[in-house]
Parts: sequence; C-alpha cells; structure tokens
Amino acid sequence: MSFSPLIRHLIDSLRILPGVGQKTAQRMALQMLERDRSGALRLAQALTQAMNGVGHCKQCRSLSEDDVCQLCLDPRRDDSVLCVVEGPMDVYAVEHTGFRGRYFVLKGHLSPLDGLGPEAIGIPELLTRIAAGSFSEVILATNPTVEGEATAHYIAQLLAGKGLIASRIAHGMPLGGELELVDGGTLAHSIAGRRPILL
Amino acid sequence: MSFSPLIRHLIDSLRILPGVGQKTAQRMALQMLERDRSGALRLAQALTQAMNGVGHCKQCRSLSEDDVCQLCLDPRRDDSVLCVVEGPMDVYAVEHTGFRGRYFVLKGHLSPLDGLGPEAIGIPELLTRIAAGSFSEVILATNPTVEGEATAHYIAQLLAGKGLIASRIAHGMPLGGELELVDGGTLAHSIAGRRPILL
Repeated sequence: MSFSPLIRHLIDSLRILPGVGQKTAQRMALQMLERDRSGALRLAQALTQAMNGVGHCKQCRSLSEDDVCQLCLDPRRDDSVLCVVEGPMDVYAVEHTGFRGRYFVLKGHLSPLDGLGPEAIGIPELLTRIAAGSFSEVILATNPTVEGEATAHYIAQLLAGKGLIASRIAHGMPLGGELELVDGGTLAHSIAGRRPILL
Repeated sequence: MSFSPLIRHLIDSLRILPGVGQKTAQRMALQMLERDRSGALRLAQALTQAMNGVGHCKQCRSLSEDDVCQLCLDPRRDDSVLCVVEGPMDVYAVEHTGFRGRYFVLKGHLSPLDGLGPEAIGIPELLTRIAAGSFSEVILATNPTVEGEATAHYIAQLLAGKGLIASRIAHGMPLGGELELVDGGTLAHSIAGRRPILL
C-alpha cells in the first residue's frame, strides 16, 4: 500500500533535510501526524519566517537578519585579523575556539569542474572587504580538502605584496587521536609542522 | 556567539523531529538557508497541508485524508481477518508482509501508570468495529513489549466467547539472528513455539 497524497508529499519534502532518507522521513512524518501536530505547524511557520527573513550580512556575507550582522557591528572585536571560511557553519565553529577577529564567508570553495570560479564564490567581494578594512593578517580557514587548499592558495597569491600576512590553519594530529589510526598525509603534515617544546 | 533569533527559532523548531538533536538541527537549518530555500518553503507548505488535511479513518482509525481510508474501501481485501496494531506506522509494516485483511489502529498500548486505560487507546471503538464486521479472526499485532503483551491479552479476554479466534503474532528468533546473541526471553519463546518440519 502507498501513503495518501498529502503524507507522501510531506515525506518527499522532508528528504531535503541533510541525512534524512526515505525511512527516516516516513518516521518523522507519521510521528508528527500522530503526536505533535502543533509542533509541526510551528516548524512550518519557523521555516517560512527564516527562509524569508534571513539574508546575508553585507560585510561578512554570513547569514543575518539585518543588513550588517551582530558580529560585524560588535566594536569590541579585533579589526586587525580577518578569518576567511567556506560557509556560515564554519563561523560558528571558529567562534567556539575563542577567535574574536572579523570574518568573511565565501560561498564554498573553488571548483573549476563544477564551474565555480573566483567570482562564483565571492573572491572579488573578499578583496573589496580587505581593501576597505585595516587588517594585518588574513587567516585562510577553508577546509583541509583538495579544493579548500587550492582556494586558500589562490587567495594567498592574490594577497601577496599587499603588506598583509596570509596564514593557513595548521594541519596535524587531532587531539585525542592515535598515530597508528591517522592517515599518512595528516601525520606527514604533523611532523613537518612540529614545534619546539618551550620549557 | 549565538544565532540570530529567526535561525535560533528554526533550530528549536526542528528539534521536534524524532532523532534530531541540537547539532543536527543546526546543520539542517544552516544547510537549508544556504542551499535550498525553495525546498524549505515547500517543506513548510507540505507540513501545513498535511497537519491540516490528514485526519483519521472512521473505520480503522489509521491516518487518512478521507473519512474512510483507501485500505478500508478496497473491496478486494479479506473481510474475515482483522489485524490490530498500536499505530499507523505498524499498518505500513504489516502491509509489507503481504497481509491483505483489514486493520484497526489503537492509540498506542494500555499504560495504567500514564493513565492510559482501555478508553484512551480506543478499545471501545475496536469492539464496535468487530461487532459491525464479519471477522472470524482477530490478529493482535501489538508490539512484543510488556505493555503490548498486556494490551493483547486484555483484548483477547474481551473477545472470549464471541465466536472469534483471537491470535497473537509469533515471537521467536528474527531471521538472520544468532542464537548466542539473542536474549533469553526471545529464545525461550522460540523453543516453546517450535514447529514440526514438514518434509
């Protein structure tokens, strides 16, 4: 037997959520219908409000309901360091480390095979932002993937000769990891990037 | 830093979905905002339509957009067997086994500690349905939990002397299981319920 049209449509629509397959979507749909219809209606409203009300900050291009986000407006932050990341989620991740400089959010990474060049991911806007600011260092915190590395190097080349330090986040052993389990590339980076122990 | 109010409200609202915690809800919210706003708006619409449009079938009490569901209306099904389950999801599970009789969906199981007595889970309606039908067998397919067993036995007692067979789904080894891994109760049921091999 198949589900009725409205339930089927709801199940299909739930599958846009990351990590939600057919089986999970079925469980979600039926559970909401059976146990939490008011919660589901609140979710529908929250979705509509967020999709219509949340835009991008003009300055850092992260998600924001205002023209310029709270983070960019905050006068207590360090105006000399800019952290460049691939997406808004990364801003929250870096923020948890205690970093208190400024951010710029790219639209992902360079991916020539998918037709994503410097314009598509917002590199011209990044250069405009850097020119308008008073940064002494730009931290390139794109992901440690092939595309993320290429994007970081591309930006570093553009910044050469502009009197800025372009730095890259360190690669190495994750805390709590085990040498015998980590991949060779990571361990090689970890050895090459070794630092003297200061006593 | 915290998320902006609309994003925070969306994250909170997503947490009503089964199996979705804080971290997953964040990822879902940001991914929809970044990559699939039209999909999210379609989801909002599907949620609203389903919550407002889907009710319960008058006859089997499963989820249905119509007064009586397609399954109850289907004239090709076996009117002599009624399968009693705890929820609409169970109907879809039993349907996959090839069962083609009729269904009745309880609202969960008896749970005196939570104040859920026979009326709360719809047992009077079940008796009305059985009286109105021409069933020769009622399969009690509540879950093999303490509450599900108690509910099945309670219903079986009510049906005693009404000229009906009240049967219970078999307990035993799940296919592909291993004797050394299965719990003792299941294995005991499996031994007690052994059947001669017909050659």
